[in-house]
Amino acid sequence: MKQFHRRSVLSGLLAGSAGLAWPCGGIAADLDAALRVDAGRLRQNIEDFSMFGRKPGGSFADGVSRFAYSDADIAGRKFAMNLLHAAGAEPRIDAAGNILARREGSRPDLKPIMIGSHIDSVPDGGNFDGVLGSMSAIEVLRTLNENHFKLRHPLEIALWSNEEGGLIGSGAAGGVVKPEILGVTLNGIRRIDGVRRIGGDPDHLAAAHLEPNSRAAYVELHIEQSGRLEKAGTAIAIVDGIVAIDEYEVEIIGFANHAGTTPMADRHNALLAAAKLIEAVQEEITREPGWQVGNVGHLEVYPNVRNIVPGRVFHTLELRDLDAAKVKMIGDRIIARSKTIATDTGTEIHIKLVEREPAAISSPALQQKIADAAKSIGLATMHLPSGATHDGTMLTSIAPIGMIFVPSVAGISHSPKELTSWTDCANGANVLLQTVLRLDRD
Amino acid sequence: MKQFHRRSVLSGLLAGSAGLAWPCGGIAADLDAALRVDAGRLRQNIEDFSMFGRKPGGSFADGVSRFAYSDADIAGRKFAMNLLHAAGAEPRIDAAGNILARREGSRPDLKPIMIGSHIDSVPDGGNFDGVLGSMSAIEVLRTLNENHFKLRHPLEIALWSNEEGGLIGSGAAGGVVKPEILGVTLNGIRRIDGVRRIGGDPDHLAAAHLEPNSRAAYVELHIEQSGRLEKAGTAIAIVDGIVAIDEYEVEIIGFANHAGTTPMADRHNALLAAAKLIEAVQEEITREPGWQVGNVGHLEVYPNVRNIVPGRVFHTLELRDLDAAKVKMIGDRIIARSKTIATDTGTEIHIKLVEREPAAISSPALQQKIADAAKSIGLATMHLPSGATHDGTMLTSIAPIGMIFVPSVAGISHSPKELTSWTDCANGANVLLQTVLRLDRD
Repeated sequence: MKQFHRRSVLSGLLAGSAGLAWPCGGIAADLDAALRVDAGRLRQNIEDFSMFGRKPGGSFADGVSRFAYSDADIAGRKFAMNLLHAAGAEPRIDAAGNILARREGSRPDLKPIMIGSHIDSVPDGGNFDGVLGSMSAIEVLRTLNENHFKLRHPLEIALWSNEEGGLIGSGAAGGVVKPEILGVTLNGIRRIDGVRRIGGDPDHLAAAHLEPNSRAAYVELHIEQSGRLEKAGTAIAIVDGIVAIDEYEVEIIGFANHAGTTPMADRHNALLAAAKLIEAVQEEITREPGWQVGNVGHLEVYPNVRNIVPGRVFHTLELRDLDAAKVKMIGDRIIARSKTIATDTGTEIHIKLVEREPAAISSPALQQKIADAAKSIGLATMHLPSGATHDGTMLTSIAPIGMIFVPSVAGISHSPKELTSWTDCANGANVLLQTVLRLDRD
Repeated sequence: MKQFHRRSVLSGLLAGSAGLAWPCGGIAADLDAALRVDAGRLRQNIEDFSMFGRKPGGSFADGVSRFAYSDADIAGRKFAMNLLHAAGAEPRIDAAGNILARREGSRPDLKPIMIGSHIDSVPDGGNFDGVLGSMSAIEVLRTLNENHFKLRHPLEIALWSNEEGGLIGSGAAGGVVKPEILGVTLNGIRRIDGVRRIGGDPDHLAAAHLEPNSRAAYVELHIEQSGRLEKAGTAIAIVDGIVAIDEYEVEIIGFANHAGTTPMADRHNALLAAAKLIEAVQEEITREPGWQVGNVGHLEVYPNVRNIVPGRVFHTLELRDLDAAKVKMIGDRIIARSKTIATDTGTEIHIKLVEREPAAISSPALQQKIADAAKSIGLATMHLPSGATHDGTMLTSIAPIGMIFVPSVAGISHSPKELTSWTDCANGANVLLQTVLRLDRD
């Protein structure tokens, strides 16, 4: 109910305005290095947002389950749309269910600057992933409006739908989502039904596709999820880019046999082969210094019976680094290792590349703007890659992209334990605001 | 229907006999080294038996699914009871559902010689495991009766219920089955209901418990399941004993985290720890020569998601050898190795012994009888341990036990591909017969 109360307060402030566009006081579109967001309001909005998907009787510390298309997601979206309305911009929902709002600029010939994030969470997730960037984007909009600060560029707020369940909203905006993936069911909801539930039009998903190079920039604020930023004691990370990801599926074929009677030398043990391969993966990833990571996260054993020698193993393998060539090289080395392992264990190992997600490199010019913005506020910065994917991955055809990270305690994310200090939240939002101002000067 | 036809043929042969006991011609209970089973009839019975649990439209080569308490099991049991009846002994069903039949001997003061096996199969199993020993035991009985061969000892045929699903029938006879295990459901049938289905009395399971040392011997013929016998080209294996088994459950606790953002050095990867442990298991088992085997057959990963570092792994571990001390030593070495692995991977590894099944050592005197029997037929022998458990494991308190193995092609068992030549089947049955004759002389 709080959001309605707020709206009425705001309506009072607007004193009879239709609320569709903020009344502009004709202030020059120039840099105001002293402009700051309302840190208290940002915190309040993040705290309020934690109600959507909180378990009954739970507290802020219990995190949220607000996966895309759920009732909690829908309630959160309504809250966010009310905040946008209160901030002075009328939201619309596109065919993919993205919430988009636009603030006009003084120069209609300039491309919009786009900022935003997502408000869905993983099941049993935290209060900051996505929400910080979403609430900060709205806060930037509101701060500009409250201060009658006219930009030359239009400003667009984008709250991308279903980030956690496959970057569906941003993928549709970037034109890289294939319609067939809408048939997939996740967390009990088929995507096509989900998109409809949140007001999208899955039958005309292409309508959500934004024109290539149609935006001046896409900037997103997000929590840093590795713990490196917190460990370094630095306020702001300028993201070099979002890593390339190679996804493999591995099938190991041995021979299921009686585990009591089959001599060790006669076994074709698919799980022993998998064990050797998992160790090889670790060795190949950590063989040289760098940010590169890799994971065998999902593994299935067949027939998975105590007293039967495993006859088949299926497992995933993903490799990530900002340098796509390095990712490919590590994959090639693992494939080479697998041949020896197959011979040694009397198994067949099939490693299939199922997806190659390119890196989304941040625009160097945009990185410089973020650095300047942080410096203007007196915040220390460092450069980091993003090991996690973000909506920006999908938007590189639309605009140069840039990301601002703030520290997350111990790097924990996708967990109720996710925690970013309110100071860091406000710092991030102010860097976002100042970045927008700097972009607008170009 | 075949079995009824046979019975009527047999009834004709019996010419008015009540069929309860074979008419005895008063032949001396002496060794007849020339006495042989009817190999053709044995083959016919094994082929006939493959009808119970065969898939519709299938052939002998398709194997059987005749798991305990199933309709196929019940039909097979009826067929077996008819064969016993036709062989001249009236079967009874004990409280555990075991089928028992007794042929009286000339010396009521002597303990019975017991022979038998089981007729249930694993799902999607073969035609010989259990059936060969069961049909051969019945064939031995019939051969003795047809030849009016009077033994001094009573002869008991035992077809143990539910061998494949936990040695339930023989376990009850040996007094080692705890009533609570009857609550377990396997292959969709709760054991307590299953025992009732096959005519047992699960509420009075103790009634199936046979008196300790009440039998002169328990001898079982079975297919050899490791392939060693076939590889050696030897007709008969004299089983040294059934291996001891130590069953462990292993839980590895790491920390589930984002697989894209968590630096490799900061991970607590439970699956990497499991991989190292599986390799350690292999190394410790194969470190020295011997028959010892071990298996990690069942493994679960949590949360088992592609892009999350595995936070927890559960897996089984079983170790087998005839020498229980060796089994324990290998387990201890693996536990020692796990401590280093836990430290190296930043995980906790808990290894819990959940069951310690002692070895069932074959009686040396009985092994000698089997050797003599084989020699009398001109069959080569070798000694082997049984890596698989058998009903004999449960019967060591009842009698000295002995087992006869015949070759199984490539050692394949628990599979439709299970195959033993008809010559080897007949050889095994004749060694069983001749072993009984030798035991009877004592």
